Amino acid sequence: MIDCGEGTQVALRKSKVKFARVKHIFISHLHGDHFYGLIGLISTFTLLGREADLHIYGPKGIKEIITLQLKLGKAWTNYSLIFHELDSKAPQLIFEDEKVEVHTIPLDHRVYTNGFLFKEKPGERKLNLEAAVAAKIDNSYFRKLKTGADVTNRDGKLIPNESVTFPPDPPSSYAFCSDTAYKPEIVPQIQGVTALYHEATFLEEHLHLCEKTKHSTAKQAATIAKEAGVQQLILGHFSTRYSSLERYLEEARPVFENTHLAEDFKVFEF
Amino acid sequence: MIDCGEGTQVALRKSKVKFARVKHIFISHLHGDHFYGLIGLISTFTLLGREADLHIYGPKGIKEIITLQLKLGKAWTNYSLIFHELDSKAPQLIFEDEKVEVHTIPLDHRVYTNGFLFKEKPGERKLNLEAAVAAKIDNSYFRKLKTGADVTNRDGKLIPNESVTFPPDPPSSYAFCSDTAYKPEIVPQIQGVTALYHEATFLEEHLHLCEKTKHSTAKQAATIAKEAGVQQLILGHFSTRYSSLERYLEEARPVFENTHLAEDFKVFEF
Repeated sequence: MIDCGEGTQVALRKSKVKFARVKHIFISHLHGDHFYGLIGLISTFTLLGREADLHIYGPKGIKEIITLQLKLGKAWTNYSLIFHELDSKAPQLIFEDEKVEVHTIPLDHRVYTNGFLFKEKPGERKLNLEAAVAAKIDNSYFRKLKTGADVTNRDGKLIPNESVTFPPDPPSSYAFCSDTAYKPEIVPQIQGVTALYHEATFLEEHLHLCEKTKHSTAKQAATIAKEAGVQQLILGHFSTRYSSLERYLEEARPVFENTHLAEDFKVFEF
Repeated sequence: MIDCGEGTQVALRKSKVKFARVKHIFISHLHGDHFYGLIGLISTFTLLGREADLHIYGPKGIKEIITLQLKLGKAWTNYSLIFHELDSKAPQLIFEDEKVEVHTIPLDHRVYTNGFLFKEKPGERKLNLEAAVAAKIDNSYFRKLKTGADVTNRDGKLIPNESVTFPPDPPSSYAFCSDTAYKPEIVPQIQGVTALYHEATFLEEHLHLCEKTKHSTAKQAATIAKEAGVQQLILGHFSTRYSSLERYLEEARPVFENTHLAEDFKVFEF
């Protein structure tokens, strides 16, 4: 889970995502709309009898806030809460398992803020069943072929892996960048990602507010997407001052065509 | 406002209560369902440009939690936030103006908890217009009559106040008691209140859970209401384990007939 504003536990329930599936929570920064729902979610996990560890990644100070509230409520969790506090201004690898890596993307906001880059690791090669059968490879080697190894066929001949397998799907990647002023320095790090979520608080008519509030316009977000050559751009964090969200698309798409708007409970598949 | 669970700002908006009308917030204890929405409400007040002072009454520690979150989010309010931290185990007068007094009601819960007793002060006497006219009292004295003073009529005769006014409505009072185990010691303090809200987490079948969790049954709440001779009892803080809330009434009403169930957005007038 990335960020956790007030009411996240209600939204999570509504979205039908199983609470137990949430094992790692990444908090970009300590403003309320990104963070005030975390303590409630943690408490509800306790009420639901959670036993699995919960890892929380976020700015330095997050551990103090959460533990102070648990302490004053005498409401310690019955599962382990493991904090990973962040204070580096350079990108960092903060999580890795066999399938995915998570890196911070340092952003430019009024308080210390990180975006997060999720990079899937390359998957297994895919079996070319027809070619493998024709090459007289025994079924028992199919598993091994997927790992990329060459194998010996029934005639004792070594068969090169590439001749009987297809390459794996290209790994997906997702960059979450919110909240931030326009920061072109992030472009190299997010180059070519499958999907970029970038905040777009303002339209161009309020460009002058970006410097003070450290937010971006839709056009700036689209410029980042274009420069980074991402596959798709998802805009969010819209100001409530505009009557129509379509205007964000109207300003972003001339710069980066494949732009979409984030909506509550909308699912983007990639 | 009494207590402020997660999502209170959303509920408040839905209830159409003007945010600016909230000037004093009384927090009974530092458990999430009574308190986790406070920081979000405070932050939203800032976004809405609030300038009026906000007074917060609650257990010792509440100031540290709130200010720590504002500090780490660099999100100081642009209005004054005035904390009144409570740690006394005896009832205290914590607020008073020309219309109302607020006293704490020390309760028995897993953490330091207070209920709150709101006592309206006696209002003005009501003019008996017919009698005042008959007694030849000039209009200009009507205001003075309401304060209880005797006045001189057009003939120079002193008219006793009671002969031309009615007594004021009896002052209302409201006792909020949540969360708490059965605590008969509160009975003298809440004697005869107009309305008592008392938690009723459990039904009698789970009476054995009350001691450990420091909650009450519906019947215990009704017993408090009966002993205190209150006018009406409102039950709330129901466990989600029961399929029907009617069962709370079935167990409370044989002990105290004028019992009602609290519901989201339900208004009780008194």
